[in-house]
Amino acid sequence: MTGRGTTTSVESLLNRRYRLLGKGSPLFYDKPLHIVRGEGVWLYDAEGRRYLDAYNNVPHVGHSHPRVVEAISRQAATLNIHTRYLHENILEYGERLISTFDPPLSMAMFACTGSEANDVAMQMARLCTGNKGFIATDFAYHGNTTAVWTVSSFFTAREDRLPYVQTVPAPDSYRVRAAFSDRNLGDAYARTVQDAVDALHADGIGVAGIIFDTIYSSEGLPDVPQDYVRKAIDIVRSAGGLYVADEVQPGFGRMGDHMWGYQHYGVVPDIVTLGKPMGNGHPISAIIAREELVEAFTGKKMYFNTFGGNPVSCAAALAVLDIIEDDGLVAHAREVGDYVQRGLRELKHKHQLIGDVRGRGLFFGAELVRDRKTLEPATAEARQVVNAMRDRGVLISKIGMHDNILKMRPPMPFSTEHADLLLSTLDECLAGT
Amino acid sequence: MTGRGTTTSVESLLNRRYRLLGKGSPLFYDKPLHIVRGEGVWLYDAEGRRYLDAYNNVPHVGHSHPRVVEAISRQAATLNIHTRYLHENILEYGERLISTFDPPLSMAMFACTGSEANDVAMQMARLCTGNKGFIATDFAYHGNTTAVWTVSSFFTAREDRLPYVQTVPAPDSYRVRAAFSDRNLGDAYARTVQDAVDALHADGIGVAGIIFDTIYSSEGLPDVPQDYVRKAIDIVRSAGGLYVADEVQPGFGRMGDHMWGYQHYGVVPDIVTLGKPMGNGHPISAIIAREELVEAFTGKKMYFNTFGGNPVSCAAALAVLDIIEDDGLVAHAREVGDYVQRGLRELKHKHQLIGDVRGRGLFFGAELVRDRKTLEPATAEARQVVNAMRDRGVLISKIGMHDNILKMRPPMPFSTEHADLLLSTLDECLAGT
Repeated sequence: MTGRGTTTSVESLLNRRYRLLGKGSPLFYDKPLHIVRGEGVWLYDAEGRRYLDAYNNVPHVGHSHPRVVEAISRQAATLNIHTRYLHENILEYGERLISTFDPPLSMAMFACTGSEANDVAMQMARLCTGNKGFIATDFAYHGNTTAVWTVSSFFTAREDRLPYVQTVPAPDSYRVRAAFSDRNLGDAYARTVQDAVDALHADGIGVAGIIFDTIYSSEGLPDVPQDYVRKAIDIVRSAGGLYVADEVQPGFGRMGDHMWGYQHYGVVPDIVTLGKPMGNGHPISAIIAREELVEAFTGKKMYFNTFGGNPVSCAAALAVLDIIEDDGLVAHAREVGDYVQRGLRELKHKHQLIGDVRGRGLFFGAELVRDRKTLEPATAEARQVVNAMRDRGVLISKIGMHDNILKMRPPMPFSTEHADLLLSTLDECLAGT
Repeated sequence: MTGRGTTTSVESLLNRRYRLLGKGSPLFYDKPLHIVRGEGVWLYDAEGRRYLDAYNNVPHVGHSHPRVVEAISRQAATLNIHTRYLHENILEYGERLISTFDPPLSMAMFACTGSEANDVAMQMARLCTGNKGFIATDFAYHGNTTAVWTVSSFFTAREDRLPYVQTVPAPDSYRVRAAFSDRNLGDAYARTVQDAVDALHADGIGVAGIIFDTIYSSEGLPDVPQDYVRKAIDIVRSAGGLYVADEVQPGFGRMGDHMWGYQHYGVVPDIVTLGKPMGNGHPISAIIAREELVEAFTGKKMYFNTFGGNPVSCAAALAVLDIIEDDGLVAHAREVGDYVQRGLRELKHKHQLIGDVRGRGLFFGAELVRDRKTLEPATAEARQVVNAMRDRGVLISKIGMHDNILKMRPPMPFSTEHADLLLSTLDECLAGT
């Protein structure tokens, strides 16, 4: 795509971008990056400068992984077609994928994006329960379709969610709701789920389900009270609803303790949705569910996704699974994740700005506060740190209801040496804030 | 993906498929095909038998086109990342794409599937007009998200569409509504759009837009009265709504007369949606709209699609545009399309079963009827013909509210020799019905 006379200056690209995509198309950093190449955990800009990628989870097994590229290239040169003909790839991949889930999760449907997967999950829950109401956490993000947007309360005003969606506070042991401080936290947060069920019922709306990102990514990786998830799900199931586990960000071993985030809580969802890292950047997503849910849904509604589960997508996704297994990436995520957590806790001792260090496996959050007693969010400082890290060649981002939580979520081959660079650069940037 | 000990027998694949995907996952033909390779307009099954593909529009420039495969392979080996960094591919492709549209259509948003594109189009129309009501034709299909499903009346019961969606009859000069037969057809069908507007207003619902597939693919390629589309759009715009042109099936030159189906009617839409053939099977879709609509939408709502517009998708899509231009595929679609139309009309003279021959460019429909006076739909016969064609090595399908219209929509490199094989095989199969 080079040599066509395009200029590569950032300013020129920005102008073309504003003209073509508009000013509302989101960009990272005060000084946007012009990235041209990726390899492993490294990204390279047009001037050849390299950046340690401590943000992107989509290139799960590393940028431009040769085994994934090879799988895509070979299959694209052979056949790329929809699933109304028989093909081995969807079966071989699907069976391998299902074997990583807990019974009775036994069936798969394929789509292209996490948004599509969550939209299907909501349709399935609504059609199978006969109810319309959904419960989601405050400040969640589950995707961008019309329906999924209603449970993406991170962005949605309360009046745009009603009457079918009720939100509950993200379960948080650090920034605890004042009213909960003297109670068993798990019970207190679970009580809000019961309140949401009651509010739906008061409006004459039945409960179709509750949707949780299994590490509450957009909520800022809150430190979840141990017994909360199980209790919340019990309440929803008692009301006739289903538990949809959104594994789009936490899934595929990133949490280090298990392949799937829900397994950490000792529960089994009714429906699980997968996306982002599944094909290492190739657009593929999935809905995993119990047999009777899939059969009831596809029996009542004709669902077909033109690109979903095609041979190229499945070849890419199978290569990703192979690499996770062959390279022992789940155990690796735990080991390196623990190493980074220790480093972040050391930085917390050194820098008052770090109020809390959270996360699991290769997904870390550091909440910045101006005062460790009042927990006043250090929102401007978080922005400063993220941009200073970028200037020093390390890519991270920020998240949470106050936009003050550093979000770090590198490709899985991230090693302890990469961690050292992340931590030492963060140390410098915090010192300069 | 071979050599892993999977058996390739159709029965074994079917059993594995039922177990993994359920019985509701749609399959073509009474005897499903196990396709393993594609090249140009040909598909090959596991036993090496070849089939002329006269159905699939997604492999727009031909199955496994080497230029598209090369573009995907090269870019996947270099960088595949989301659009929150700057990259040339999205700009170069987007600018080339926009240059094929009529002003004032000047901006693009990217997603992965036609369903996502239509969902965004509905969100944009609703947010920009402040209204919620949509109008769609009977028996339309625009995709599978919760919102888009409400305008996919092909599958949706009337009670699932209300109150925000009103449907109008697909404009049809062949199977004309009895009440319209003595009137100017364009006016009569346009009047149903006014009725839909009035029905929305009676329910206190404003008009956000009307959505039309520009060749009414799922409605069975009806022979549209000349002045209908312009009049329908005028009515919707007078009511404050927007015109969304769904080019997911007709777009990218397939119609032969123009690059986009809407251009046939001498109108310019407010929003255009693209999908299926855009990346020759790689999942990429787009929303094209006027500047003020994109700016208003992305200014009010954070829209981000993780895979949409990534460098690999845009490299694939740019290769498709290059091939369309370099190989003169739009003119080719017109020439070969006219050739096939002549052949189908000859078959109509010979076989009473063909009641009507329709379509434009490389998209043909032949409506099968038991009686040319009563127009009794030959639904069972259509199924017989489609399966007999498959047995003789030519792949087509069927469509329409009575499932009696043969649907033929081959990859664009389809030549007159391929057409001869399609027509002679169809002749044989009709003779045997």
